[in-house]
Amino acid sequence: MRTLRLTPRRGKAYLIGAGPGRADLITVRGLTLLRRADVVIFDRLIARELLDEIRADAEEVFVGKESGHHTLPQSAINELIVDRVRQGKQVVRLKGGDPFVFGRGGEEAQALHDAGLPFEIVPGISSALAVPAYAGIPVTHRGLSTAFAVVTGHECSGKAASTTDWDALARIPTLVVLMGLGNAECIAEKLIAAGLAPSTPAAAISQGTTDEQQVITTTLVDLANAIAQAALPSPAILVIGAVAALTEELAWFAPSGQAAGFLSLAATPGLRVAHA
Amino acid sequence: MRTLRLTPRRGKAYLIGAGPGRADLITVRGLTLLRRADVVIFDRLIARELLDEIRADAEEVFVGKESGHHTLPQSAINELIVDRVRQGKQVVRLKGGDPFVFGRGGEEAQALHDAGLPFEIVPGISSALAVPAYAGIPVTHRGLSTAFAVVTGHECSGKAASTTDWDALARIPTLVVLMGLGNAECIAEKLIAAGLAPSTPAAAISQGTTDEQQVITTTLVDLANAIAQAALPSPAILVIGAVAALTEELAWFAPSGQAAGFLSLAATPGLRVAHA
Repeated sequence: MRTLRLTPRRGKAYLIGAGPGRADLITVRGLTLLRRADVVIFDRLIARELLDEIRADAEEVFVGKESGHHTLPQSAINELIVDRVRQGKQVVRLKGGDPFVFGRGGEEAQALHDAGLPFEIVPGISSALAVPAYAGIPVTHRGLSTAFAVVTGHECSGKAASTTDWDALARIPTLVVLMGLGNAECIAEKLIAAGLAPSTPAAAISQGTTDEQQVITTTLVDLANAIAQAALPSPAILVIGAVAALTEELAWFAPSGQAAGFLSLAATPGLRVAHA
Repeated sequence: MRTLRLTPRRGKAYLIGAGPGRADLITVRGLTLLRRADVVIFDRLIARELLDEIRADAEEVFVGKESGHHTLPQSAINELIVDRVRQGKQVVRLKGGDPFVFGRGGEEAQALHDAGLPFEIVPGISSALAVPAYAGIPVTHRGLSTAFAVVTGHECSGKAASTTDWDALARIPTLVVLMGLGNAECIAEKLIAAGLAPSTPAAAISQGTTDEQQVITTTLVDLANAIAQAALPSPAILVIGAVAALTEELAWFAPSGQAAGFLSLAATPGLRVAHA
């Protein structure tokens, strides 16, 4: 006679990148895991269509995020993930963009590692690359740019504590600045002081990939003024370098005309995924 | 009595990023458009599972790509895309990684623009970010790195024509080098000459995100030797900077154990997507 043994189900955390804003830019793997999750812990700026894919009986926890200010502090988010995985749950931590690109996913993974719990990273389409692409700007282009750098715009001020080396960044052909709207003037000044031409093409893209996308193209010296005049709302991404001028010929996305372009995710019956 | 007018169907090109190697890291939008395509023009290194999703009656054109050497030259690829769109076809140009990150997608978009034809960019998960993530390396991490740069390793030699500014790149906290396997020694020498510590953590990741993934972690000064000793096959990505050491605690992907983790894409019934 066999003895039945009740072993608790093994929990696991999935740190999933939701992508840059458009729901259908999530990966197939990310969507599949989201639909299966017992618990979903999510940030601001996640497309509504994705949240609609969460199981009706799953636990949903909004942890917010507004310019780095969380509804829950990062340590509490880490504890929440660890707690639910310990309970044996399949936990999805759904983050905007990519979890390992300015997403603090590394810290969440460390908390899981320290607790001895299994996790998986599911990359997402990073806004740093996709938002320029939706404005018709390739971050690399033959003859114009064979390297690019990505940085946040938070650290531009007189404070000595800034770790951002604007002098070095000025020498990279394409510079993508996330969260740089408020510091555009300071950033432009530092880059010009470092030797970048005031006439360097520059673009600011607000709410990129969504139906509210707005693109401004100008020059580095005029960037802050152009942003102010347009009263461009956040979130926005700045692109500085010769490639920014390509938007004039390569802009392809007409936000208002694409509203119907969204995938009907609800029409996607469950994908199968085998457990590792 | 109404007159029937036969208007030719309007062709369109979709430059789609297939992602870094794993089939299920394609976006939902990319997979949907791939399944609908009349013509699919694809490179090397596209997962077999994705090619299986192409309609049986679609035209498939392999244009190759091996270390920058195409079966077809880029100009011929551009002409092929333009020709098929002019015929009124829905043409998918399927590229590894992201079409606008070292993918020459910008040139294909320009050819379509010049021909007055409509196109869409469908971002893909870039190997530059996802391959490090699959090795447990976040390109940014609080306290370690608030900026990263991505560059190809092709341009490291004594030739004056090199446009890669290794001195500036040495000052960016995280450096991701694509196609840098053959030039690892030259790259390390230039970065150390520019002031980067020989003991800087460095990783080389071969065939990242696939079941053949191999990761080497070492220091910058030992990188080329470690690659040679392991006879690491291409394609590979180098990560140089403090974050590379995080793989020791954050490595989560066990290639052999994850073979069953691939999504069964064939089990995904067609998603609906409205025409823009």
